[in-house]
Amino acid sequence: MSPLHEQHFRAIENLIFEWARAIDENRVEAIADLLLEDGRYTVKSRFNHDRDLPMAIIDSRSAAQLRDRIKSMRIANIYEPHHYRHILSGVQIVGEQAGVLQVRSNYLVVRTMALDGDMKIISTGQCQDEVILTPSGPKFKQRLFLYDSRIIETLLVIPI
Amino acid sequence: MSPLHEQHFRAIENLIFEWARAIDENRVEAIADLLLEDGRYTVKSRFNHDRDLPMAIIDSRSAAQLRDRIKSMRIANIYEPHHYRHILSGVQIVGEQAGVLQVRSNYLVVRTMALDGDMKIISTGQCQDEVILTPSGPKFKQRLFLYDSRIIETLLVIPI
Amino acid sequence: MSPLHEQHFRAIENLIFEWARAIDENRVEAIADLLLEDGRYTVKSRFNHDRDLPMAIIDSRSAAQLRDRIKSMRIANIYEPHHYRHILSGVQIVGEQAGVLQVRSNYLVVRTMALDGDMKIISTGQCQDEVILTPSGPKFKQRLFLYDSRIIETLLVIPI
Repeated sequence: MSPLHEQHFRAIENLIFEWARAIDENRVEAIADLLLEDGRYTVKSRFNHDRDLPMAIIDSRSAAQLRDRIKSMRIANIYEPHHYRHILSGVQIVGEQAGVLQVRSNYLVVRTMALDGDMKIISTGQCQDEVILTPSGPKFKQRLFLYDSRIIETLLVIPI
Repeated sequence: MSPLHEQHFRAIENLIFEWARAIDENRVEAIADLLLEDGRYTVKSRFNHDRDLPMAIIDSRSAAQLRDRIKSMRIANIYEPHHYRHILSGVQIVGEQAGVLQVRSNYLVVRTMALDGDMKIISTGQCQDEVILTPSGPKFKQRLFLYDSRIIETLLVIPI
Repeated sequence: MSPLHEQHFRAIENLIFEWARAIDENRVEAIADLLLEDGRYTVKSRFNHDRDLPMAIIDSRSAAQLRDRIKSMRIANIYEPHHYRHILSGVQIVGEQAGVLQVRSNYLVVRTMALDGDMKIISTGQCQDEVILTPSGPKFKQRLFLYDSRIIETLLVIPI
């Protein structure tokens, strides 16, 4: 690992943790600020990704598009109240090209229903992120969540 | 993150990991030594915390009180043998005031029953900790476990 | 923690994460290169370990033996296609003797079946590793996975 990586490793880990904490604390709007304005946030099955199939369940091609989606979650979607808990592990910087860091991590999301307290692992998978170090700290150029199971029980209304 | 935080980050992470490992390795008594003598250890539902309701399922207001609780677990409580496995993630220092560091992390606890080997996620949530750097290393001034689900299947006999 | 540990902590964490990522990305062969040629990889129940009982479900006494096992998984074993997701936490260096670092961490493995997408926690436990710092980076002298539950639902075909 180059000195550049060493120096910024903690900041990148913190960026990844911040995304998760914003969602878990129901401050979902805050994640859009962690994405570059022309950044991309995609949630796709490992199955489709391995076969180069384009279909994704979320594919926001800018921070503005992600803000729209979160707003619709707040004011338009009807769903049973629930929240998430992210458990993350294995953050690794696996490459760098022209100032873009390639970052890998694993995630597991537990969903808890407000009504009956039912807890369930709703998704596990790998994040394949591209991170850029800006003057105001690291930001995501791309967040790609590759989920392991093709089964998505219900509409994924809150972003992961 | 200030240089102070950077320098002590690893030690604080280690404190959090040490608490979990002591419980998982059935050396539960050791956690009381990680709490300041007048420290506080509380396990409360996210639901109650969000509404400023006081009820908690554990609320030890000193290390001595926590030691008492652990002793009663060892010699008085009758329960089916089981142990825990803690999975922790997302340790972040989110603030500092008068030498007290505000620390956040997520936790997930899997319980395994000794008799039939049944495994189950019994709790997920967020830790909101206050940490003080003492000459003998960081210690908890407060450990607050906010659990996500209001359902606690059975008596929580072993602290989390 | 001595300066030696501090300096190499990130590299050791990365070694542990790399093992998991190689398996999760179906590059299982790569884990044998993280083990010293005369290293040992063992998967054993906590129950047996606590009682000093020798029986383990995997016990490879060299990297070559582990390579054999992986080859048999690729070409001989018949099993329903599935893959793993490792969630790791709590990496701690707990001791050092004659250049061998004693490392602890917790793991949780979720298995996803390719056919129906069924997800399940198949194993949780503690890793008790011995790590040596070689000129080409840290390597495992021993990887010991102690799993919590004596129930192993089916043949553990992919190493954890």
